[in-house]
Amino acid sequence: MTEDFKGYRSPALDVLRRFGAGVWSEVTVTTRDSVLEGLILPRTETADPYHLVLKLPTGYNIGIHHENVKNIVVKGRREAHYKIPEKEFPVSPDKPSVVLLGTGGTIASRLDYRTGAVIPAFSPGELYGAVPELADICNLTTKKIFGIFSEDMCSDHWKPLAEEVARVVEEGADGVVIGHGTDTMHHTASVLSFMLQDLPVPVVMVGSQRSSDRPSSDAAINLISAVYAAGHGPIAEVMICMFGPTSDQYNLLHRGTRVRKMHSSYRSTFRTLGAVPLAMVEHGKVTILDKTYRPRDRSRRLKLDTRFEDKVTLLYFYPNMQPDIVDALVDQGYKGIVIAGTGLGHVNRKLNPSLKRAIDKGVHVCMTVQTLWGYAQMYVYDTGRDLLELGVIPCANMLPETAFSKLSWVLGHTDDPDQVREEMTTPIAGEITPREPPNGYLVFQGGVPEVQEFIKRIPK
Amino acid sequence: MTEDFKGYRSPALDVLRRFGAGVWSEVTVTTRDSVLEGLILPRTETADPYHLVLKLPTGYNIGIHHENVKNIVVKGRREAHYKIPEKEFPVSPDKPSVVLLGTGGTIASRLDYRTGAVIPAFSPGELYGAVPELADICNLTTKKIFGIFSEDMCSDHWKPLAEEVARVVEEGADGVVIGHGTDTMHHTASVLSFMLQDLPVPVVMVGSQRSSDRPSSDAAINLISAVYAAGHGPIAEVMICMFGPTSDQYNLLHRGTRVRKMHSSYRSTFRTLGAVPLAMVEHGKVTILDKTYRPRDRSRRLKLDTRFEDKVTLLYFYPNMQPDIVDALVDQGYKGIVIAGTGLGHVNRKLNPSLKRAIDKGVHVCMTVQTLWGYAQMYVYDTGRDLLELGVIPCANMLPETAFSKLSWVLGHTDDPDQVREEMTTPIAGEITPREPPNGYLVFQGGVPEVQEFIKRIPK
Repeated sequence: MTEDFKGYRSPALDVLRRFGAGVWSEVTVTTRDSVLEGLILPRTETADPYHLVLKLPTGYNIGIHHENVKNIVVKGRREAHYKIPEKEFPVSPDKPSVVLLGTGGTIASRLDYRTGAVIPAFSPGELYGAVPELADICNLTTKKIFGIFSEDMCSDHWKPLAEEVARVVEEGADGVVIGHGTDTMHHTASVLSFMLQDLPVPVVMVGSQRSSDRPSSDAAINLISAVYAAGHGPIAEVMICMFGPTSDQYNLLHRGTRVRKMHSSYRSTFRTLGAVPLAMVEHGKVTILDKTYRPRDRSRRLKLDTRFEDKVTLLYFYPNMQPDIVDALVDQGYKGIVIAGTGLGHVNRKLNPSLKRAIDKGVHVCMTVQTLWGYAQMYVYDTGRDLLELGVIPCANMLPETAFSKLSWVLGHTDDPDQVREEMTTPIAGEITPREPPNGYLVFQGGVPEVQEFIKRIPK
Repeated sequence: MTEDFKGYRSPALDVLRRFGAGVWSEVTVTTRDSVLEGLILPRTETADPYHLVLKLPTGYNIGIHHENVKNIVVKGRREAHYKIPEKEFPVSPDKPSVVLLGTGGTIASRLDYRTGAVIPAFSPGELYGAVPELADICNLTTKKIFGIFSEDMCSDHWKPLAEEVARVVEEGADGVVIGHGTDTMHHTASVLSFMLQDLPVPVVMVGSQRSSDRPSSDAAINLISAVYAAGHGPIAEVMICMFGPTSDQYNLLHRGTRVRKMHSSYRSTFRTLGAVPLAMVEHGKVTILDKTYRPRDRSRRLKLDTRFEDKVTLLYFYPNMQPDIVDALVDQGYKGIVIAGTGLGHVNRKLNPSLKRAIDKGVHVCMTVQTLWGYAQMYVYDTGRDLLELGVIPCANMLPETAFSKLSWVLGHTDDPDQVREEMTTPIAGEITPREPPNGYLVFQGGVPEVQEFIKRIPK
């Protein structure tokens, strides 16, 4: 009966066996500290072997270390497929309307109780069953645009997604939430920041680093905060709403052009770079941290522009780079190259003839910094000045990925070198900022007390 | 007489004019807070227009905001070339011997007082004149290997540099310091970490983010700490010794394979990623922060291995990447590709046929994560498992630049796929760690009090 222990390995497996419990057992677990009632959940193939996972009657899942288990009493066993109770989403005329667009990625999930597979919960009724708080916030409707892994996102997806956002905004939504896999969420956020100009309402991207069948999932808190920011928040920009650092008490809203995924697995992976996040969201409250945001204004007219050039690439410089790489890109017909250079925006001198050849052939070459923080300042050294003279466009503190999105979008409109330079060096969505605040390096730090301290110091 | 105001622009220029002072004037400046004596220094073309820079009799340069200047009395003017007083470096038999190898980059400098150009001070006598503390630490000898911008570093430099380190260690040096431009210092550090196996003594790389003619230069403190760590420190690894965060009271020693330049201009730009720094250096004291270091042991025999494959590249993945990029690299004869993938180590599915073609042709493909923090965990999702099945080698938490250095070095030895995989997944210089400490994400934070607090919690 190996199915009964799906995903469990020793030593957690030994504990289940000792007490005659298994997956789907309804149990009372006595730990060193407390007595817990719930349902033993299956684990994924990649889970650690030390924890039992228990679904509590509240729907929250917790992990219990095998060494903390004193006793398990089995009260019964669920046999049938489990399904989140689907309830009709209550509609109230005094609540804002929010549309949730699905592209893939896990927001809320339900478990298939036989296979242990995670099945995304997506209809309003399912989401309401999984996260009942949503009904207190807004009238929610959902639409699945596509369901893909986020690394497969490309211009064929970005264009219809931007068009769909424009459509639902046009139709009167008070805010839009986009469910998205986290891996490339910031790439999509930067693309949408350029495709969706002059937004009248918030567009909030959200996902989760740990799906809702796992202990300490961030799915519910992220979704609640995103829906709140979309329906009630004052910021009409493309944003990412994800878990705040070092605390599970709040989320942060990051500007779509200044955010990056910085950890492959942590929940607090999304960080605003070279600036502070736009706002904090907690307990039905949006606290502004950066006053430069564009305010919500229903009368503003959204400008949709989805033109996009696919022959653009991002070249990450390393010392020992050979010029044949640049030559090959030009020969493959690439029209734009964003370099992530070293230091203030440099490459080795032996690339210069190839870069000159590229620019002479009409390829647009932009420079960003691979330090991620700080500015390309190419006038400081001879080597940088030589690149400027060749026609390389310095992109100040635009993030490399954002510069890739912007150059692809700009080259969708124009091939004129002067206009490309003008557009790349003029910020239109906060992608270049005049200076980095002292607390903009590395992270916006700290738990809630530090954030509160920071908020106190914001000039009124 | 525009030369008299070299580099000054309004409003600082107006203040100099008002009081009849200029560059090279010996002056007494009365500010709001104090009275300062010194020499007005020229400024660089990129300097801000708000500050006067004064060289104090101690040799320290300070910037004075133009609004704080109450009065300037001109006492004289230096006409001749200025030169740091060159003194004979005192030799003492009870001090360790340290060899400083120069590759370029500014450590200490003197100013050409006519042109305002910064001329590196480098002979032991010059360094002693500029930074007299050095003579209290060690018996210093210096050797210039080459003088280049660090972005021009390539295998033609890494090999002779490693050979020179091996030679001076062989000849009995108690420690080696390498002066290096900061832009690619961490690339060189990772290359040397592989080329120099089983070091018996410390090899400490150092540079400065602000040259010593500028206010708040980090040149002297970095050099003093690096020389101390080389001559007296207990860690026999390739390290980077640079400015600590948020304080000018200490330096940090970073392991050569786990460090990265993270800000284009800040002094506290070098950060250990996914771990804590090896040690803190302050006031002639090395405090260990990570006990996994290799201890100094003069009897250990250094193994020098400089074989290096130049046809290796680093491919920074972005969504919308087209397979023709991978095809072009293979067709150019590249033998190794390190991918910096999204999330847990992914690329879009349309690259898979091209990656299969590459691997079938004998190209070695490794996966790292572009989040920089966290691990490639390619077995979690189908997409990652597909890449593993194609033969992509997962590199755990090896930094992308470190993986580039290591793959270049490994392919210098072998072309056998099994051996390449074995070597890439087995750490030999701390480039992969079994886990990330809770305080290893983003930064080792804080000023000295926080560091002290952290030190208290290190298990004895």
